[in-house]
Amino acid sequence: MTTCGMDAAEFRRRGKEMVDYIADYLENIEQRQVYPDVQPGYLRSLIPEEAPEEPDSYEDVVRDIERVIMPGVTHWNSPYFYAYFPTANSFPAMLADMLSGAIGCIGFSWAASPACTELETVMLDWLGKMLNLPDDFIAGTAGQGGGVIQGTASEATLVALLAARAKIVRQIQATSPERTEVDIISKLVAYSSDQAHSSVERAGLIAGVKMKKVPTDEKFAVRGEALSIMLKEDKRAGLIPFYFCATLGTTPSCAFDRIAELGPICNAEKIWMHIDAAYAGSAFICPEFRPLLNGIEFADSFNFNPHKWLLVNFDCSAMWVKKRADIIGAFKMDPLYLKHDHQESGLVTDYRHWQIPLGRRFRSLKMWFVFRLYGLKGLQAYIRKHVDLAKDFERRVREDQRFEISADVVLGLVCFRLKGSNELNETLLKRINSTRKIHLVPCQLAGRFVLRFAVCARSTESRHIQEAWAHIAEIASELMQELPH
Amino acid sequence: MTTCGMDAAEFRRRGKEMVDYIADYLENIEQRQVYPDVQPGYLRSLIPEEAPEEPDSYEDVVRDIERVIMPGVTHWNSPYFYAYFPTANSFPAMLADMLSGAIGCIGFSWAASPACTELETVMLDWLGKMLNLPDDFIAGTAGQGGGVIQGTASEATLVALLAARAKIVRQIQATSPERTEVDIISKLVAYSSDQAHSSVERAGLIAGVKMKKVPTDEKFAVRGEALSIMLKEDKRAGLIPFYFCATLGTTPSCAFDRIAELGPICNAEKIWMHIDAAYAGSAFICPEFRPLLNGIEFADSFNFNPHKWLLVNFDCSAMWVKKRADIIGAFKMDPLYLKHDHQESGLVTDYRHWQIPLGRRFRSLKMWFVFRLYGLKGLQAYIRKHVDLAKDFERRVREDQRFEISADVVLGLVCFRLKGSNELNETLLKRINSTRKIHLVPCQLAGRFVLRFAVCARSTESRHIQEAWAHIAEIASELMQELPH
Repeated sequence: MTTCGMDAAEFRRRGKEMVDYIADYLENIEQRQVYPDVQPGYLRSLIPEEAPEEPDSYEDVVRDIERVIMPGVTHWNSPYFYAYFPTANSFPAMLADMLSGAIGCIGFSWAASPACTELETVMLDWLGKMLNLPDDFIAGTAGQGGGVIQGTASEATLVALLAARAKIVRQIQATSPERTEVDIISKLVAYSSDQAHSSVERAGLIAGVKMKKVPTDEKFAVRGEALSIMLKEDKRAGLIPFYFCATLGTTPSCAFDRIAELGPICNAEKIWMHIDAAYAGSAFICPEFRPLLNGIEFADSFNFNPHKWLLVNFDCSAMWVKKRADIIGAFKMDPLYLKHDHQESGLVTDYRHWQIPLGRRFRSLKMWFVFRLYGLKGLQAYIRKHVDLAKDFERRVREDQRFEISADVVLGLVCFRLKGSNELNETLLKRINSTRKIHLVPCQLAGRFVLRFAVCARSTESRHIQEAWAHIAEIASELMQELPH
Repeated sequence: MTTCGMDAAEFRRRGKEMVDYIADYLENIEQRQVYPDVQPGYLRSLIPEEAPEEPDSYEDVVRDIERVIMPGVTHWNSPYFYAYFPTANSFPAMLADMLSGAIGCIGFSWAASPACTELETVMLDWLGKMLNLPDDFIAGTAGQGGGVIQGTASEATLVALLAARAKIVRQIQATSPERTEVDIISKLVAYSSDQAHSSVERAGLIAGVKMKKVPTDEKFAVRGEALSIMLKEDKRAGLIPFYFCATLGTTPSCAFDRIAELGPICNAEKIWMHIDAAYAGSAFICPEFRPLLNGIEFADSFNFNPHKWLLVNFDCSAMWVKKRADIIGAFKMDPLYLKHDHQESGLVTDYRHWQIPLGRRFRSLKMWFVFRLYGLKGLQAYIRKHVDLAKDFERRVREDQRFEISADVVLGLVCFRLKGSNELNETLLKRINSTRKIHLVPCQLAGRFVLRFAVCARSTESRHIQEAWAHIAEIASELMQELPH
């Protein structure tokens, strides 16, 4: 009986076929329907109920990609995909990921694969410099801060929250050793925008701390005054404010909290300020968008997702902290089987202390390939192109008197709606999505049902924007004709 | 200015070169030194301090793989790697991962890519059936339970703990609505083996609950009686036991908690029993090892890592729950931009409610390719081969009177030591690792410093075991000669 499954010689052949399949898929993706027609449960009946005893043939497996998988795929990389936010996809990142899979090290400590750890630290420095982050966030050879790759922004938010929780408990117990951890945690209160991503509220649930939503202004941004009012009330009520998660580029409308106002308040009150710029962060590599990050100097931690808009395939969420001791201190554990000779040298980073999971892939290879093969200028050009496409769409919406723009268009997201009721807009969206030509998702802004148009795919060009708008306008016309006059 | 970085035509060429590079790397991996010679900080000086403005050439990037990366890689897939536990690596899994990267969907909900969600549910059913899990854990078309792919066992432990925490709080508040969540959580107590992985203790820290270590017997296993004693004491002290994490195959010595004794106790006390079989779980696909899982019928959740020993490349940690409502209930959130038409149909799984992160890769493709291209028999043969190699190593150790075996050899891990002091064994390990011929890590068992020899690589053959043992025996001989008589 063979245990080989597939040997290297066959992999050479099959791997090259797969490379061609992938190139074909991405070159011709716009010919596929962007959103699938399948009904829930479609897949189970297409394949056996159990794994085979004896191996299937490779030909059968490959045939099933088109038979079983593709009919149920939402094509995130289609130029007709305008839902959620983009997910990055580039050939350099895919090549690096292939290499990462082959090396297959589990880089939980420096010793588990020094290259995996060290390339990550240096790549986060490279990226931090592209964003012009304050020096405090750059590891260099002697920095107190530095960066790490998390899986998702949700994890970065949680890790920052846990670090802040551990820090405030230590601080309070240092002066009031009689106070128990449970007692302190019961008084803690964290804050985020009422526009913040659901994962922020979830982080509060996981960490078992109160998470309050700060009301936003007419631009859907948190201002300093709004936070100050809440802090004053909560302190008067005996609570301990300790964490504020600011959002740069909210999910509903890509709004920007006023971190230059909020930062000094957080610093004065000794509140950990974490900045979540999951989507928008990539744009800060362009000098013209960098002012949106002004105020970063007040932050304790900062995160954005190169896997959204910087051409590094999922997962790659970049997070920086000013004081690595804060994040490591939250839950450092060193069992003997994870100890190694260099551990106490100070030069060494053991990234397992920086994250929720223990194991980790060699993800910095993707950053290295992408940064080098695009170059900073190529990446900037990519961001600018998407912003231009969004502005193009915005212009078309504004020229049509039936529609209104629902939030400032700053980067690649356009929030818009038909002037009229929420029901009307819900119907509009349902019709748009049911034609399967393009795919959008909605949001709610100030009680209004709004359509989100996010420029997503690497392959999106001006003609796709034109087509998308023509399609939306046509459906709107049909809809208006049906309405009673 | 181009924004393309690399087009599909170049990817066809470079991708095929990369396939050959990967095949070469894995075919010739034993010619590489298993553990690197580099010193901390080695990499930074080998590459520029900043990303390039203009793109580098692909040739330069590829050249740097051997110049910059490989000198710092710990080769986990080398047949001379016997450290930690294995990390899976197979050609079918790599092919599937390439496809997953190209599709690049972010499967947080059914609608975000139905194929991604549905294949995962069915693959977890396939795998559950391979393990002969009780029906309660199989989703089928109408089951209350089912499986999910987590990133790592650490996350599975944490997710189960959070689900258990939410459940007990709900239960207590149902009968005592006056009790606050903070008050209840302050009384909660979770348990695990004193041999459990550090991630279990860490899960307790994250969730903010007490985590107590249950003492193990002479086989390093938790027995029912040991848990019962602690439960009685803790309840007398007014605490609320709510979670027990049993380990099948502990990290130090691959010991097995007595779940058939522990399960009924947990069930009677309404304590959530989670089983962490991160490493050992893969072996349960073989009928002769399946008895080690007897008692699973008492568990609320179960987890193991196909990415360790079942040829599915990292990350792929399989987790099952009996009642999916428990796990979803821990932190379900539904903002408008994540809602979709099929959400309330009951047929649909939105895996974002099952995990810490929001986004997720299409990881079930790896399972599908591996299960089909190896077949159950091929996977069983692979497990058996590794166990046989470990038994072979054990026999050699036992034949050498200078050595002793420190724990039962059940699967692919052999714990052994020179008869003598901890210092002697520390020196032995240091010398073994410093020659760089093979790589091992230690553990501590009952106060003794012990060497762990884990059969890891897919390419490990009998001759490598012979070589490894000859090398260890020789170093031991040198060491003994230096000792004062």
